Amino acid sequence: MIYTCTMAPSVDYTTYLASFQVGGLNRANAVNYYPGGKGINVSRVLQQFNIPSTALGFVGGFTGKFITQKLQEEGIKTDFIQTKETTRINVKVKAEEATELNGPTPFISEKQQRELLKKISQFNKHDWLILAGSIPSTISSAFLEEIAKTCKQLGVRLIVDTSGQPLRQLMTTTPYFVKPNEHELGDLFNKKITSVDEAIYFGKQLVENGIQHVIVSLGAKGAIYLTDDCIAVADPVQGEVINTVGAGDSMVAAFIEQMTAEASKVDAFRYAVAAGSATAFSNDLCDRQLVEKLAQDVSVHIYTDRK
Amino acid sequence: MIYTCTMAPSVDYTTYLASFQVGGLNRANAVNYYPGGKGINVSRVLQQFNIPSTALGFVGGFTGKFITQKLQEEGIKTDFIQTKETTRINVKVKAEEATELNGPTPFISEKQQRELLKKISQFNKHDWLILAGSIPSTISSAFLEEIAKTCKQLGVRLIVDTSGQPLRQLMTTTPYFVKPNEHELGDLFNKKITSVDEAIYFGKQLVENGIQHVIVSLGAKGAIYLTDDCIAVADPVQGEVINTVGAGDSMVAAFIEQMTAEASKVDAFRYAVAAGSATAFSNDLCDRQLVEKLAQDVSVHIYTDRK
Repeated sequence: MIYTCTMAPSVDYTTYLASFQVGGLNRANAVNYYPGGKGINVSRVLQQFNIPSTALGFVGGFTGKFITQKLQEEGIKTDFIQTKETTRINVKVKAEEATELNGPTPFISEKQQRELLKKISQFNKHDWLILAGSIPSTISSAFLEEIAKTCKQLGVRLIVDTSGQPLRQLMTTTPYFVKPNEHELGDLFNKKITSVDEAIYFGKQLVENGIQHVIVSLGAKGAIYLTDDCIAVADPVQGEVINTVGAGDSMVAAFIEQMTAEASKVDAFRYAVAAGSATAFSNDLCDRQLVEKLAQDVSVHIYTDRK
Repeated sequence: MIYTCTMAPSVDYTTYLASFQVGGLNRANAVNYYPGGKGINVSRVLQQFNIPSTALGFVGGFTGKFITQKLQEEGIKTDFIQTKETTRINVKVKAEEATELNGPTPFISEKQQRELLKKISQFNKHDWLILAGSIPSTISSAFLEEIAKTCKQLGVRLIVDTSGQPLRQLMTTTPYFVKPNEHELGDLFNKKITSVDEAIYFGKQLVENGIQHVIVSLGAKGAIYLTDDCIAVADPVQGEVINTVGAGDSMVAAFIEQMTAEASKVDAFRYAVAAGSATAFSNDLCDRQLVEKLAQDVSVHIYTDRK
């Protein structure tokens, strides 16, 4: 089974207007609402590929109910822990410039952390756990380490896609697969990464530390994939970028989909790059057809030893 | 029975942050959620005075459910008609400057308009209908006139608190009570009202046209009350203005409360001014205690004939 875990989900409320005036009363021409959060995005893209997953994490209030209901309507299983707080709304204003206004992440009590850990301790060998998105500040580093330890003991494949201190923390536990972007990778080493070669250099260090699969997304520069026996570099896919929200999550989902289908690692990477691009070229997350179309165009260069 | 009707309610989502950057990712320090809309505000303030009311109007989706549930939790009856569209979220950003971002008003079909009219046609003599807040553009002027005609035939006291073309339309039907602010009153006569005397001049014309009670709220200049046998002017109440949302609605609610308690018209006006001020001095809508305290300080000057 594949489990995704989003500790601080959101209702993503996108509003479209011609012009946005600070200090004034603005009226949106159109709006839409999506269940948001990186783990949730992974579940939604997996569902596009007809791969079942269960969404875990913490939700509360009317917005939490919306997220739960929307996922279930899409056919995704949910097993959220309820918070007292109302799940945040993240507002995305699309006007001359794109502006984001995110709500506060929830308070997660010790008891609620235990509850999540209990669920994880019941996972089976070869299950997947994708821990993705921002980690609320009330979640202790000890708790994150305990999740990683539990996964290792059970043989659960842990995938980590977060940032900041929690990413740093979780990297030391050598998860199965990580997908930092160039900034997140740079943050891990207190460096600013500006080239593909630099990304390869630091990505290799993660592999040497014991992480089995590393994808580094490089935005307009493409992506790289590193494992103990190969380095692959994908050129960027040409197309009009509409929306970068969820592009990285689509890469994670597509990579898992291919791995569970026992595709080669390099094909899984190719598919991941196609899915990331497909989402970037769409209003919402990618659909399968576009991913399959783009996968044919992804150009991947493979090196067995590149410094 | 007292009915309030809000055609285009909202979830009012207030976010507090130190600084708001257009084009960036902003993180709110704190947020809150209220059921919003003028008719809904009137019901909520009436409930503060322990006066039962039923909230009518149109709601849909997860935000519509939130509004319904919140009102019911506060003890207010609801009898909303369901829309296909999700009830809008109005974002209020509190930073260096206050910025508002309102969602689109709902599409109300002919059938849904009929449904509301059917409810109104079952009201009893001496019931109150407070039609307050913005009117979606899909609502026809014929429909508004039919509401007014139905109220008149049944002996239902119609109170109107809206703006623009719908207010203009409804004024011609001589409702029982109206509460324009100085701008709305000016709009009715294509004039800019700048003084208390001008407000009195135009307010009297509404009374002469057959409207029994007219309150014109003048913000920092106080308020005036006009009826066929008196003109009353209230000085502004001193205090720190925190929030002007719902101040006018609080005036309407307090006025009705006093009228149903058979207070004198002038005392009802005094109480209305106190309630408007109490809301302006509070984070949410006023509470009864503050209204009663301020009512003692409201200074009202009465004229039987002032030009």
